[in-house]
Amino acid sequence: MAEPFAGRTADEIAAIRQNALDAYAAYQAKKLSLNMARGKPCPEQLDLTMPLLNAFPQDASPISESGDDCRNYGVGDGITEAKKLFADILGAKPDEMFIGGNSSLELMFACLQIAFVKGIAGCTPWHKLDKVKFLCPVPGYDRHFALTEYFGVEMITIPTDENGPDMALVKKYAESDEAVKGIWCVPVYANPSGIVYSDETVRAFAALKPAAKDFRIFWDNAYCIHHLTDHPKKALTINEACAETGNTRIFYQFVSTSKVTFPGAGVAAFNTAKENLAELSAALGIQTIGFDKMNMLRHVRYFGDAEHMRQYMDKHRAILAPKFEIVLKTLSEKLTPLGLGKWTNPQGGYFVSFDAPKGTAKRVVQLCKEAGVTLTGAGATYPYKKDPDDSNIRIAPTYPKPEELQLAMEIFCLAVIIAATE
Amino acid sequence: MAEPFAGRTADEIAAIRQNALDAYAAYQAKKLSLNMARGKPCPEQLDLTMPLLNAFPQDASPISESGDDCRNYGVGDGITEAKKLFADILGAKPDEMFIGGNSSLELMFACLQIAFVKGIAGCTPWHKLDKVKFLCPVPGYDRHFALTEYFGVEMITIPTDENGPDMALVKKYAESDEAVKGIWCVPVYANPSGIVYSDETVRAFAALKPAAKDFRIFWDNAYCIHHLTDHPKKALTINEACAETGNTRIFYQFVSTSKVTFPGAGVAAFNTAKENLAELSAALGIQTIGFDKMNMLRHVRYFGDAEHMRQYMDKHRAILAPKFEIVLKTLSEKLTPLGLGKWTNPQGGYFVSFDAPKGTAKRVVQLCKEAGVTLTGAGATYPYKKDPDDSNIRIAPTYPKPEELQLAMEIFCLAVIIAATE
Repeated sequence: MAEPFAGRTADEIAAIRQNALDAYAAYQAKKLSLNMARGKPCPEQLDLTMPLLNAFPQDASPISESGDDCRNYGVGDGITEAKKLFADILGAKPDEMFIGGNSSLELMFACLQIAFVKGIAGCTPWHKLDKVKFLCPVPGYDRHFALTEYFGVEMITIPTDENGPDMALVKKYAESDEAVKGIWCVPVYANPSGIVYSDETVRAFAALKPAAKDFRIFWDNAYCIHHLTDHPKKALTINEACAETGNTRIFYQFVSTSKVTFPGAGVAAFNTAKENLAELSAALGIQTIGFDKMNMLRHVRYFGDAEHMRQYMDKHRAILAPKFEIVLKTLSEKLTPLGLGKWTNPQGGYFVSFDAPKGTAKRVVQLCKEAGVTLTGAGATYPYKKDPDDSNIRIAPTYPKPEELQLAMEIFCLAVIIAATE
Repeated sequence: MAEPFAGRTADEIAAIRQNALDAYAAYQAKKLSLNMARGKPCPEQLDLTMPLLNAFPQDASPISESGDDCRNYGVGDGITEAKKLFADILGAKPDEMFIGGNSSLELMFACLQIAFVKGIAGCTPWHKLDKVKFLCPVPGYDRHFALTEYFGVEMITIPTDENGPDMALVKKYAESDEAVKGIWCVPVYANPSGIVYSDETVRAFAALKPAAKDFRIFWDNAYCIHHLTDHPKKALTINEACAETGNTRIFYQFVSTSKVTFPGAGVAAFNTAKENLAELSAALGIQTIGFDKMNMLRHVRYFGDAEHMRQYMDKHRAILAPKFEIVLKTLSEKLTPLGLGKWTNPQGGYFVSFDAPKGTAKRVVQLCKEAGVTLTGAGATYPYKKDPDDSNIRIAPTYPKPEELQLAMEIFCLAVIIAATE
């Protein structure tokens, strides 16, 4: 981060502050109501997918490739054609796929819950242990942290850079402490930084030799096809890396169409080694009658194959890329000259990660709120919502209309200036 | 149960056995493959509901009554119009409804899981207790028992008669032992007996004063509109009974359209007091991004209101009632003259409960299997799959075609005769 206001005199800074306060007051008078709190697709994105609703009409066959009637009970791990589709998206094997309901978060929760209640890989259920720990690369996804917090798991923050988590630290914790049971990862277009883990990072994950036999990498590949450029970087998959090391049981990989089709009415899936799949499927088979096979079939028939789903993402990109440009351009124009803040330049995903001058993030969010702009809470990107630097803010540009986003970002920049000069 | 073979000589019984063995061998030679294991709707029932798939086409509005876009994140407890629909079905208040995903079993699991992991009503989470017990009226539903078994809960069997569970015993256990945390109930057309709890039974539930503050009645109203006659008995609702006693937090009531529309692609819901709803919603809000609001909307638009859903069940009845007649007529013709077995005569639901002569149920199921007829495993209707009398068998007549069902029931009766004469 550049030195804030480097080379400027106190008077100049006071003038900058006053200008910002005046502009801020003018925006406040407009009584705006803009929401950038969550990574929500905008209505225009959702409109793209309305034909999905006609993809499985009443005169279509409800029978899956394997001959199962998707209208009835059974097929607890998902239909064959959906396994193929998601396996292709992830670079996984179809027989290492489990197709779930509408929420990959629900599947992540289930994986934790099964380890907590029943235990996995022959290990003691977590609820019988004095202490269970999880590694949490930061900044990270608040809903991941809420899951581990729910189970009373102690969360250890791991710094990240443009290549991913600090793998020396991950290795140290995972390999020395049997209480460390896993790590949260968003390897492609991380939430919120947008970074893509380097091949070296992925290989370091695949090479881990954790002390705990039930250590699992929770590899949340939520944004694997959510590019913002037409020349996306090809990331090494965890599947390839773990096939090389033979460390195939170490990861659970998650994916969904929440941000491809409809959040809440999409299809979620996970991918892991067959031995893991067997124990998770057995437990899931007790907990539910199974997941919605009709919606799986609807999705498969809509997309046909993974290639079509990948192409489909171009339509989302056409809507989203200009929004990210607004964010980056405004930050750059308003804050770079002042040496204020540092932010990422994501090539995909749903967020820009912004670091305000230390100790000002909460104040920035409050100032935005008071001018009608709702942001993700400061601290949300850290376990227990505690950012030790009170610096990181997650910017979610996808939902607002471009003109609203422009306004919101101008207010945001004013808030950063005001907070930095208090 | 009548005395088996009352008044018959040993020679007569030997002749009956030989005739049964001959007939059984002839069926075996046919190499049949008939499945009566689960309470599955038949394809003809599922065909009824195919127009549901067109009930929410791409040009329809995705906006709910409350103005929420059902395509996006949010509305964790379900859309307003679905709450109204299910509240009307149950005789509950819309603001005491939670609309879930495709599985009421999943919601029951969640309710147990929240009590186990986090604790409810300010009580200690079950995982920190030495012992948790649950009351299990028998015969009952195997998947209920599997849920409590999953959490290591000790299951206590409670005998039932035509009025429901033995309420003196329920009261004794619930009111004297703080480790007793709940009871499984299927109050209307119980699984498998088909009985409807009497008003007196429902009132006795509403009057319970359990020792444990987190004691809950799991009131699985899966079959509340699944009548087999056109003059269904009106059952007192748990809502009415608990409103009278003021004991409103004592129950969780579950319902779904699994056997109204599609198993696996229906909508499930639960109903409980607002205070309970608040703590369950908070926990569920961590565990998932929410449930499928598009499928909720599809269902509401298909049915319009509860009255139409009730009328819709007449179409199911037209398919199912003749199947139950086949079962009851065959049992009556083949076994009544021999004084063998006892069975229920359900006025709704999905099952007939059959009590074979003591010690023969496993053998009956095995004989059926060896002649190509798969039944629910003997013992499945008891916790831990242990029927102390080895007598109860759940007959599920809904899935097979009538002619297959006739064959299967003839084989079943032969198996009962053969097992009884071994």
